[in-house]
Amino acid sequence: MERGQEIGLRIDQTLAQDATGTLVIQELEALGLDRVRTEVSVQYVDHNLLQADERNAEDHAFLRSACRRFGVWYSKPGNGVSHPTHMQRFGIPGRTLAGSDSHTCAAGSLGMLALGTGGLEVALAMAGRPLYVTMPEIWGIRLAGRLPEWVSAKDVVLEMLRRHGVKGAVNRILEYHGPGVADLTAMDRHVIANMGAELGATASVFPADAAVHDFLRTEEREADFRELSAEPDAVYDLTDEIDLGSLEPLIARPTSPGNVVPVREVSGEPIGQAVIGSSANPGLRDFAVAAAIVAGRQTHPAVSFDINPTSREILADLTKMGATVDLIAAGARIHQAGCLGCIGMGQAPAAGRNSLRTFPRNFPGRSGTEQDAVWLCSPETAAVSALTGEITDPRDWAAEEGMAYPRPRLPEHASVNRAMLEPPLPPDQAARVALERGPNISGLPDFDPLPDTLDGPVLLKCGDNVSTDEISPAGAKALPYRSNIPKLAEFTFTRIDPGYPGRAADLTTDGLPGRHFVVGGENYGQGSSREHAAITPRHLGLRAVVAKSYARIHWQNLTNFGVLPLEFDDPGDYDRIDTGDRLRLTDLRTALRPGAERRLRLHNTTKDETYEVSHRLSDNRRRTVLAGGTIAALAREEHHGGD
Amino acid sequence: MERGQEIGLRIDQTLAQDATGTLVIQELEALGLDRVRTEVSVQYVDHNLLQADERNAEDHAFLRSACRRFGVWYSKPGNGVSHPTHMQRFGIPGRTLAGSDSHTCAAGSLGMLALGTGGLEVALAMAGRPLYVTMPEIWGIRLAGRLPEWVSAKDVVLEMLRRHGVKGAVNRILEYHGPGVADLTAMDRHVIANMGAELGATASVFPADAAVHDFLRTEEREADFRELSAEPDAVYDLTDEIDLGSLEPLIARPTSPGNVVPVREVSGEPIGQAVIGSSANPGLRDFAVAAAIVAGRQTHPAVSFDINPTSREILADLTKMGATVDLIAAGARIHQAGCLGCIGMGQAPAAGRNSLRTFPRNFPGRSGTEQDAVWLCSPETAAVSALTGEITDPRDWAAEEGMAYPRPRLPEHASVNRAMLEPPLPPDQAARVALERGPNISGLPDFDPLPDTLDGPVLLKCGDNVSTDEISPAGAKALPYRSNIPKLAEFTFTRIDPGYPGRAADLTTDGLPGRHFVVGGENYGQGSSREHAAITPRHLGLRAVVAKSYARIHWQNLTNFGVLPLEFDDPGDYDRIDTGDRLRLTDLRTALRPGAERRLRLHNTTKDETYEVSHRLSDNRRRTVLAGGTIAALAREEHHGGD
Repeated sequence: MERGQEIGLRIDQTLAQDATGTLVIQELEALGLDRVRTEVSVQYVDHNLLQADERNAEDHAFLRSACRRFGVWYSKPGNGVSHPTHMQRFGIPGRTLAGSDSHTCAAGSLGMLALGTGGLEVALAMAGRPLYVTMPEIWGIRLAGRLPEWVSAKDVVLEMLRRHGVKGAVNRILEYHGPGVADLTAMDRHVIANMGAELGATASVFPADAAVHDFLRTEEREADFRELSAEPDAVYDLTDEIDLGSLEPLIARPTSPGNVVPVREVSGEPIGQAVIGSSANPGLRDFAVAAAIVAGRQTHPAVSFDINPTSREILADLTKMGATVDLIAAGARIHQAGCLGCIGMGQAPAAGRNSLRTFPRNFPGRSGTEQDAVWLCSPETAAVSALTGEITDPRDWAAEEGMAYPRPRLPEHASVNRAMLEPPLPPDQAARVALERGPNISGLPDFDPLPDTLDGPVLLKCGDNVSTDEISPAGAKALPYRSNIPKLAEFTFTRIDPGYPGRAADLTTDGLPGRHFVVGGENYGQGSSREHAAITPRHLGLRAVVAKSYARIHWQNLTNFGVLPLEFDDPGDYDRIDTGDRLRLTDLRTALRPGAERRLRLHNTTKDETYEVSHRLSDNRRRTVLAGGTIAALAREEHHGGD
Repeated sequence: MERGQEIGLRIDQTLAQDATGTLVIQELEALGLDRVRTEVSVQYVDHNLLQADERNAEDHAFLRSACRRFGVWYSKPGNGVSHPTHMQRFGIPGRTLAGSDSHTCAAGSLGMLALGTGGLEVALAMAGRPLYVTMPEIWGIRLAGRLPEWVSAKDVVLEMLRRHGVKGAVNRILEYHGPGVADLTAMDRHVIANMGAELGATASVFPADAAVHDFLRTEEREADFRELSAEPDAVYDLTDEIDLGSLEPLIARPTSPGNVVPVREVSGEPIGQAVIGSSANPGLRDFAVAAAIVAGRQTHPAVSFDINPTSREILADLTKMGATVDLIAAGARIHQAGCLGCIGMGQAPAAGRNSLRTFPRNFPGRSGTEQDAVWLCSPETAAVSALTGEITDPRDWAAEEGMAYPRPRLPEHASVNRAMLEPPLPPDQAARVALERGPNISGLPDFDPLPDTLDGPVLLKCGDNVSTDEISPAGAKALPYRSNIPKLAEFTFTRIDPGYPGRAADLTTDGLPGRHFVVGGENYGQGSSREHAAITPRHLGLRAVVAKSYARIHWQNLTNFGVLPLEFDDPGDYDRIDTGDRLRLTDLRTALRPGAERRLRLHNTTKDETYEVSHRLSDNRRRTVLAGGTIAALAREEHHGGD
C-alpha cells in the first residue's frame, strides 16, 4: 500500500448502468464468464429512458436477459438512478464497490470504498478478479460546526470545488471526519461523496456512524450496519477543514463544476429552467425541501420546473408526504425516476437561457444544447429561483417572504420495495437463458497488438480539461448507440472537431483503421467513466495519446483498450506539436518491457524534433497495452500461459 | 346547410398544440393580426416535451411570447394534453371549437361542435374569420343498456371501429344519443368523441346533460353549464345502435385502429410494454382503475408499465386518492403530463415486441419503432396484461384472482388549478411584447403569385395513396424543425425519393426556388392534416400537382399555400409523363378567372404532347391560388379592396 503504486482491491459488489452496462455484458461474454463471483452485482436501467426509437428498449431487454444468464440483479426502468437505489437496497459499510459509472463513489456515504471505473474493470470484478488502482493519497477533510439555514450539502461540495477546482483531488481519497459530520444525514453525505468525482477524487469516504445506522434502519436493513470510522489518531497525507457554519449558498457558473461563486454575486440573472434531481441531490429531503418552498406558490411562467425523482422509493415517500401534490400544484413537471437531463437525455434548455440544476456536471453541451448555460446549485437555490424567475439567494427571498427554513419531517420507515428488483436466477436455470441481442447490439471490435513502431499523424490536438463527454458524447443522439461501437464511433470528438471521424476514416487502408495520435492538455479525459471514450477512438485507429496529464478513470480505460497514454516531460513541448504533424515511436516492445525505464522518445517527423515523454504503466499494464488491451491480454494469457 | 355544400362556421374558441402552433403563430403574423378575436384561444405545449436539444425549449419560449403578444392563453409544458385540459378549464356546451390537432373533436363530449383543422384555418378563426367546411351528413348512434364489468368507454369506440372501419364516418358528424348515454361520464364520452378522428368523422357530439353538469360542477365551472340535446324527433341521415350490455373487451391489432378483435381471441401473446394515457383515455377514472388493478401486485419484470398522466389536475387528483403510490409500488413508470409516446416522442417499444396502449392510433412506425407491434385497448386490458406479461382478457384474470371490478370513488371536487394557465395580457401591455424568436424559428416563406405561364420540370412522379407522412415526415428527427420551414423542407419527399430536395435546390436561380411540378396517383396526400406537407414543397418551388385524385384536407392545404391541384381527365395520361419531363401551363390568369371552365390544357414540351386536366376550385379558391395562397390573397384584399 505505497502511494503511487498499483494495488489490487477485492471487490464485493458491482453496479452497472445501462449506458455502460451493455458493453460490460459484451465484455463478460468476451471473458467467457458463466456466472458472477461477487457478493452482489446489480444492473440498473436509469440512463437511456427516452426511447426515441427501438434501440433503448432493445438494450433493456438485452440487459435483463444477461442478468438472468449471469446471476445479476436487474433493476428495470423506473426503479431509479443506480447510486441512490443501490445505497437504499444494497449498500453495506466496509464493503468494496466497483461501478461502471463515475458517480459510484457516492456510496462512500455509507462507509463503503466505492470506485467508479470503466466497464471492463467492472466485468473483471464480476469475474472475481481484483480491481487495480494506483494507491492514492488520503486527504482528511475535517468538518466542523453546523450548516446555517438555507445552506445544504450541495454547498459543502461546491465549497470544496471552489477551493480546489476540478483536479483538486486527483489520485486522492477524500476522508471526511470531524464533529461536523454528525450534522449530515447519510443522504447529505451521498451528495458530497457523489461529487467527489467532480474533484477528481479516487473515492470519498464518510464514517459509518449513527447517521448511517439511522439510514439503514429506515431502509429496514439494520442488520447490515457495522460501525466504522477512522482511528482518532489517523494521519493524513493532506488535510483541510471546512467550518460548515461559515458557508453560504454557492453556485457553479457555466461551464464547469469548478466555476463556483456565491449565489448573491450572480443574483438577478433571468432563468428558463430549474431542475431538482440526479445522484448529486437524490435524497427525499432534497425534493421535500423544494416542495416546501414552492407549496402554495406558483413557479414563474417562463420557467420549466423539472422534478426528476431519483428512485421509486423516494417518489413513493415524497408522494405519501403530500409533497408531490405541492409540486404539481406549483407548476412542476414530474418526470419518471432516472438520470434524464443529467446525462442529456431530454430536458435540454433553450440556447443561452440559464438553467439551474442540482446536477453534478455542467460541461458545455452536456445538456443537449450546444450553447447551453447550465448552473449547478442546491435544491434550495433552484426552487426559490424557479419561483422568482431569476437566480436568487434563498436567504434574501426567505427574508422578503418571511418564510422559515423548511426542515421537512421524513418518514421513520421508507417505502421499501423489495419486489421491484429481479433477483438472480439459480445457476441451473441461468445456464439455460439465451441473450436477447437486438440488431443494434454489436460485438466488441478486435483488439490487435500495439505495433513495435507506431507511426502516424496527430489527428486532433485539444486543450485542457477535455471531458469524456467531448470525446464520446452522451445525449439523445449518441446514447442509443452505446451498444453499437462502429455507429457510436461516428460521434467521436465531434463536439470539439466534427472532422475527426472523417479524417480517421480517410486514413483507413484495406479496411484497417489508420493508426494515429491525439495530443491533449491537462486533465485529459475528465468526467464520466464511459469507456466508449477509449473504445471508439481506438476503433478509429487511435493508438497513443500524448497529454500533459490525465483523469484517472480515462487513463485506465485507455490502457484497458490498448491505447498508450503518454505524458510530456516538458509541458512546453505541447506547444511544439500541431494537428497534422506525423509522430513516431520506435522499439515499443523493448521500451515497454517490464522493468524498462518510463521515458520514451517521441519523434515529430514533420518538424524533425524529438520530445521526451513518459508513461505511468505498471509492468502488468505494459503487457496489457502491448497485447492490444485487457481482453486481448487475458486471451493471450490463457493461450500462452502468461508469457 | 345543404349536404355537400361549403358552409362557414363562426368559431368561439380555438386551441393549438406546440407541434402545429408555431406555424399558427407565424400565420397570425403574416395575417397582420394584432389581437385574437375569439372568446377564448389557448396554446398548449404537450407534444414536443422530450427536449433532446434546444429547439423544443426555444419553441416553448416563442409560443409563450406569442401568447402574450396576441392575447392567447398559454399552457406551459407539464400542464397536460390539450384536449382533456381544455375540457377541464374551457369547454362550454354549445360553443364551437377549432383546433390544429385532429383530436380536437374530443370536446364533443361536452356538447361542443369541435373540429380538428389545419393551422391556417385556426389562425383565420383566431382572426375572427369563419371556418369553411363541407356540410356533413349527421349519423345518429343510439346507445342502449349499460356497460358490463371490465368493459369501458374505449371498448365502445373500438366497437364502432370494428363495425365501420377507419373511413366509416368520413364527411359525417356522429351524434350519440339514447338511454345508454347516461351510463357514460363526460370523460367516458371524451374517449369516444376523441377517436371519432379514427373513424374519419368531421365531429362527434354528445348531449350536454346531467353527466356534463356533474363534470362542470366537479371542475368548479357549474355556471358554464347549459343543457343541450337533440330533439326527441330528430331525423338522422343514417342511424346505428349499440347495446352497451352486449360489449366485451376489444383490442385493435397492429397496425390500424380498424383491426379490432375481441381480446379473448388474441390472449396469451407476450408483451413488452403497456401504456395508460393519451387523449384517448385521459380521465382520472382510467388511471384510477389501472391503479386499483395493480395495487398490491407487481408488474411483470419484462414489461415496461408506463403511466402518462393527461393533465396536471388529473395527476394531482390521482395522487391525492393514493393511486399514484399504488402505481409506483407496482412498478409503473410515472411520466410527466403530456402526449409522449402517443405521438412517438419517446416510449418506443423494441422491434416486434407487443406494446399495449390506450392510445388512439397504431399506424406502423408511429411509435418511433419502424417494425413496431402496437395494440390499442382499454386501461383494464392494458393494466391486467402488464401484470401477466401477456395479452389477457381482464374478465378471465379477474375470475382467477377473485377480484371485483374496481369502481374507484372519484373526488367531488377536482384539484382545480387556475394559476397554471397564463391569461392573455391586457391589450396595451400585449402590444409592447416582442416575440422571442429562437434561431430555429423561421418566418413563413414569401408566397408570390402564380405566374401566368407556369413552365418547369416534373421533379417527382409518385404512385397511389402517398401520405402527408411521406411528403413531410414527422418523428424525432423532423419534428424539432416544425417551426423552421427551410430546414424542414430538406426532409420533403425523402421517404419516397431522397433526391427530391437536392433536385429542387439545383433548380434555384438567383435565390429564387425553381418552379416545378409533381405528378401523383390516386388519393394523393392522404393521412394527417399537417400543412407542412403543402408548405415545404411550395418553399422548394412546387407550383402545381397533377394527380388522379386527392385526399380532402391536403387538397385544401395545397390551395391555401398557392399550389395548383390539377386532376387528369384521362387517368391514362398519368403513364405518359416521366420524371424530368418539362410541363407548361399558359394563360393561367385567364384560365382561372371566376366563372371560367374547369378544364386546362397541360403541355408536355419534352414529349410534345398535350393532356386535358381539370381543377375543382371555387371562384374564391381560384383567387387564392392565383394570389399565391390564402395569406397572400388576404393581404391583396386588404391593399386592393378585394379586386
